[in-house]
Amino acid sequence: MSVLVVGSVALDTVETPFGVADSILGGSAVYFSLAASFFSPVRLVSAVGEDFPEDYREVLRHRSIGLEGLAVRPGKTFRWDGSYEGRMNEAETRQVQQNVLGDFRPVVPEGCKDSRFVFLANCSPHTQLHVRAQVPEAQFVLADTMNVWIETERTALLELLQNVHGLILNDAEARQLSGCDNLLVAARWVCERGPTYCIIKKAEHGAMLMGPAGVFVLPGYPTDSVRDPTGAGDSFAGGLLGHVAASERLSDATLRTALAYGTVVASFTIEDFGTTRLNEIEREDIEKRLEEFINKTHLPEARRG
Amino acid sequence: MSVLVVGSVALDTVETPFGVADSILGGSAVYFSLAASFFSPVRLVSAVGEDFPEDYREVLRHRSIGLEGLAVRPGKTFRWDGSYEGRMNEAETRQVQQNVLGDFRPVVPEGCKDSRFVFLANCSPHTQLHVRAQVPEAQFVLADTMNVWIETERTALLELLQNVHGLILNDAEARQLSGCDNLLVAARWVCERGPTYCIIKKAEHGAMLMGPAGVFVLPGYPTDSVRDPTGAGDSFAGGLLGHVAASERLSDATLRTALAYGTVVASFTIEDFGTTRLNEIEREDIEKRLEEFINKTHLPEARRG
Repeated sequence: MSVLVVGSVALDTVETPFGVADSILGGSAVYFSLAASFFSPVRLVSAVGEDFPEDYREVLRHRSIGLEGLAVRPGKTFRWDGSYEGRMNEAETRQVQQNVLGDFRPVVPEGCKDSRFVFLANCSPHTQLHVRAQVPEAQFVLADTMNVWIETERTALLELLQNVHGLILNDAEARQLSGCDNLLVAARWVCERGPTYCIIKKAEHGAMLMGPAGVFVLPGYPTDSVRDPTGAGDSFAGGLLGHVAASERLSDATLRTALAYGTVVASFTIEDFGTTRLNEIEREDIEKRLEEFINKTHLPEARRG
Repeated sequence: MSVLVVGSVALDTVETPFGVADSILGGSAVYFSLAASFFSPVRLVSAVGEDFPEDYREVLRHRSIGLEGLAVRPGKTFRWDGSYEGRMNEAETRQVQQNVLGDFRPVVPEGCKDSRFVFLANCSPHTQLHVRAQVPEAQFVLADTMNVWIETERTALLELLQNVHGLILNDAEARQLSGCDNLLVAARWVCERGPTYCIIKKAEHGAMLMGPAGVFVLPGYPTDSVRDPTGAGDSFAGGLLGHVAASERLSDATLRTALAYGTVVASFTIEDFGTTRLNEIEREDIEKRLEEFINKTHLPEARRG
């Protein structure tokens, strides 16, 4: 079953303690698509400018990502320029150029309107609601959000919550949205406002899933191989929703396994700049690392049980 | 196999968003002893003043904790007065009165010198070395430390590392000691300086074990029931070393299970002020929660496998 993603396609300039990468392929929809493509066919809805390099388009095509919904608009591609320091926990945004995404109203192509698994990447909740209305048959719509929308478009965000099946956000955002310090309480707060599932990302500390069967947490993949954290969150969402779409069975058990796949795919993303590692790995690398993840985070007795 | 602990016995005054508790039983050796007592016989070495209440002594006796090494010295019992705010991640110390512990040189009773499992609770590394020399037959000595010793007694601390089998410390301390941001790298740094095992506590985010078989991580027990985090770290160490002593088999597998027991026992400690919960629960409550912990943090497939 294919996955539809609506989000950004970007040219990123990133500086980390390990170097600088200039105008590389990035954006939420790109990271999500590449990550999900290991599990399910992906269809991408976004817009780029006339400057978008053919090589970057080829990166997406190489993973058979459907680009019917990728509009080419007059002007320049969205640009993000950011840096990470020290523990690289948080990006400092140096510059954002909205360019062709500034006034973009995403249109889901006719052939994609029957999509059953949909990711609404981080974006104004108004735009997310606009997209949501175009995929009425969706069985599982997962939305991302961030601090700026929680602050400035809270009403629209709460309306969005009533129209999606899952919300994914990071720990600081979950606390900001709910006003609750404890993440279990924050996740329950979200689930009481519409979504069946709430997924809270905790970066190196892993992720939490709240669903009908209660809470489930996984630690991050233990690694000392981090060169560029950009795209980790969207890669996590891609691995997660990719697995859900592939399994075609919506349940807490599916989502729990999906949490592990998201964790593992994101652990590859951060090993090098931009999409480098997602372009290099294959599904078998993911399966092998999932095995390693289980060995490094699951009790032997539990495994035997 | 019994466990020996050398640390503080205290009268704590604690304020959290959930209330205030005045002059309650506390101290590293107390939390450690109560936590370890569910798994193994415990022998406690410390000192109290003439003001130490008989009721508190009874709390320890109730768990059959050996008090032969608990000296009663002229003067007052060690006192700690602290508070927690908001997410209760860190205690703010309002006042410390060393009292009888100020110049205390712990003496391990003759009958305890054959101890094979020893916990050197947080203390000056000079004192820890002094105790270490009194238990030459120990098979597994685990030491705790903290920021002040890393700053002011680094040389003695590095000497201690060459004389213990395990070091346990929190994430900020591990980074401070090693100068490494990444916790895997920090833990390896510690293991290269003597200890076979390094255990890094990450509070609500769980714990990491580094040993000969590599890294192992567990998330914290997911809970919204936190009223007083005091003693969580020492309870964690108690559950951990209690299990190791009970299993009598030193291996990565034992330590990994021990990490889970430590996590679970600490999750009880924080549910109420002081030692309240540790006095209420029984071993079967720990086993039941371990099962819940596995259900909430381990993939079903891995459990089946």
